[in-house]
Amino acid sequence: MKDISGGVCAARDFTAAGVAAGIKKGNTTKRDLALILSARPCQAACVVTRNRVKAAPLYVTKRHISQDGVRGVIANSGNANACAPGDLENALRMCKAAAAATGLSPEAFAVASTGVIGQPLNIDAIERAVPALAAALSPLGSADAEAAIMTTDTRAKEFAVEFPLGGKTVHLGGIAKGSGMIHPNMGTMLCFLTTDAAVPAPLLQQALEIVVPRTFNRVSVDGDTSTNDCCILLANGAAGNKPLSAADADWAVFLEALEHVCVCFSRAIAADGEGASRLLTCTVSGAAGEAAAEILAMSVIRSPLVKAAMFGADANWGRVLCALGYSGADFDPERADVTFASRAGEIAVCRAGRGLPFDETAARKILSEKEIEIKVDLRMGRAVVTAWGCDLTYDYVKINGDYRS
Amino acid sequence: MKDISGGVCAARDFTAAGVAAGIKKGNTTKRDLALILSARPCQAACVVTRNRVKAAPLYVTKRHISQDGVRGVIANSGNANACAPGDLENALRMCKAAAAATGLSPEAFAVASTGVIGQPLNIDAIERAVPALAAALSPLGSADAEAAIMTTDTRAKEFAVEFPLGGKTVHLGGIAKGSGMIHPNMGTMLCFLTTDAAVPAPLLQQALEIVVPRTFNRVSVDGDTSTNDCCILLANGAAGNKPLSAADADWAVFLEALEHVCVCFSRAIAADGEGASRLLTCTVSGAAGEAAAEILAMSVIRSPLVKAAMFGADANWGRVLCALGYSGADFDPERADVTFASRAGEIAVCRAGRGLPFDETAARKILSEKEIEIKVDLRMGRAVVTAWGCDLTYDYVKINGDYRS
Repeated sequence: MKDISGGVCAARDFTAAGVAAGIKKGNTTKRDLALILSARPCQAACVVTRNRVKAAPLYVTKRHISQDGVRGVIANSGNANACAPGDLENALRMCKAAAAATGLSPEAFAVASTGVIGQPLNIDAIERAVPALAAALSPLGSADAEAAIMTTDTRAKEFAVEFPLGGKTVHLGGIAKGSGMIHPNMGTMLCFLTTDAAVPAPLLQQALEIVVPRTFNRVSVDGDTSTNDCCILLANGAAGNKPLSAADADWAVFLEALEHVCVCFSRAIAADGEGASRLLTCTVSGAAGEAAAEILAMSVIRSPLVKAAMFGADANWGRVLCALGYSGADFDPERADVTFASRAGEIAVCRAGRGLPFDETAARKILSEKEIEIKVDLRMGRAVVTAWGCDLTYDYVKINGDYRS
Repeated sequence: MKDISGGVCAARDFTAAGVAAGIKKGNTTKRDLALILSARPCQAACVVTRNRVKAAPLYVTKRHISQDGVRGVIANSGNANACAPGDLENALRMCKAAAAATGLSPEAFAVASTGVIGQPLNIDAIERAVPALAAALSPLGSADAEAAIMTTDTRAKEFAVEFPLGGKTVHLGGIAKGSGMIHPNMGTMLCFLTTDAAVPAPLLQQALEIVVPRTFNRVSVDGDTSTNDCCILLANGAAGNKPLSAADADWAVFLEALEHVCVCFSRAIAADGEGASRLLTCTVSGAAGEAAAEILAMSVIRSPLVKAAMFGADANWGRVLCALGYSGADFDPERADVTFASRAGEIAVCRAGRGLPFDETAARKILSEKEIEIKVDLRMGRAVVTAWGCDLTYDYVKINGDYRS
């Protein structure tokens, strides 16, 4: 498996584009409308937010994805098309516009939106822009499509890999936007993945349901879960491999590639969390089980006190122990070890629940890096879980405390 | 029932004091050691943190409280006496010092600490200061004791009430410190309550276990739960009422008084949350059950996005709906109404899950007050729950991101 460029167009026979449709009033220069298209019908899978309040596009996407012949995705930023008048109809109109411009059926498109909720979507602006969007489709269009789904993201997120599958060389890649919030409203994670491997839809869905809980669901920027989160995976089979089966040895290979790409996106999303100055990785090892390890790692990564301490490069391990303690998961505080690490080194700060004497200057140097690892060893079992997050900074408050309009 | 002054000494035959023992290196002027004493033996009850990592003093307190003849509480700020060498022994030594200075047994004292964890307690400084502390005990000492347990609290928290019980006039009051963090470390809520009512210990414990979940457990400043949280209630019977029984009509009267006092403390703690500029109250009504209503109200009050929006006086109801949605509790988003209120007025912003047109200027005026109510009506049932919190401000990040030493 090797990392390659190309993002959502790294897989054969996928094209993409992104244009400025003027979805947000007065903003006609930022790209805000994206289209991804496969030259051939795809098998498709998706995982959507667990929030009970689900945006209208998610219902449309789930229905279209459940049918054969999916060909692409249309997505916009600037408005979440959620909890607003006409939201379901507008999601359908986005699919219809994509269909009209490509000569396909509306059911061939998944649809996603990100931005402010509760405000009517400027569907006219979208319909006007779709012909130019379709005309711009290109195998080099991944970056434009990515730009069109970004909101407060400060960095583009495109990843792809190439790996052998069933004797063929296949590609899997995508684009994502992180949990940055669109200026005045709620965060959304969108991730569109494409592959030229041949994978039947049920297996594709299974792969996503195995990998998403181990990757995207272990990212926390602020603990809030959006109404619009979704991850879509399209497989067009252009690589010509024999369609994958769960009985193949290659099933594990495909899962590994998908997990690798999703870990790349998860880390990028956490590192680009709103106002973040550092990527935090919490690895809980020695746990009795994976479920407990996940609760514990997520509790540390979500703790505002841990996050603020990391912003201050403060080796405040008491807050880590405290976050483990209130997580609700079972562990023995008297056995837990805590270590801070970064590329500047590693420092043990707590052993068996008791503070160790340590060099504060060395600790501060380690914690001043852009990427910090908080390692917890519970000394109970063999389960290991990693979760990703970011520090809590003044900029987080600034971005999210700003007045909405 | 009427509100009165006197705090933890409002009840007859209770005295208190607070002195500066110099527990934190280089800080010999701030009061950091408190003593509360009853002239007669008390029935006692306590509720402690649900964090699995519990500070040593809590174990000592639970043991002493379970025995007869409790007479008082000794408490310090400046060090949490948790996860540190000798922590259990030091907690016992605090009780012994209080006992030696008052001619009582060590088992007559509950003990509590708040401050940085993982660092050795300066027990020598405490032992040196206890004689002067005991000598300073006074019926007017509530404010000094309160000052001695405060850490980053910006306001003193003393409340008391007077009410009739069993034909006598009884008093119930206390002092508390909030979830402000001591400068470098973790937050603690301590609350010491005293009453001159005669209430058998099992009933006293029951009262605390009924009221704490409805009050202190519905406060969230940042979602972190400390290792040292505790609420202690002492009843010395000086009012001369017939010992309360759960079969008495007065049982409800006592519970009501206790809840009133605990609500006062809960609101004061939330309003004085670290860096807080506003008190947030979230009332979820029309819920199918109290358990679901509590989960929903707490999810809103904990949401960093809601908290940041309130800091910005931004009527961003989408974030409220979103926090309800990811809470995990059952409700129908298509029926939920959201209203913002303050003493400046009230404004409906969402009805049946859909945004209402509203006057942004009026909304901003309402949300610019010091106390904001977020009202959610689920239109499903009759359960109502209120939770308390505060906004998320630059100062929260500043206070908690500062380097520890």
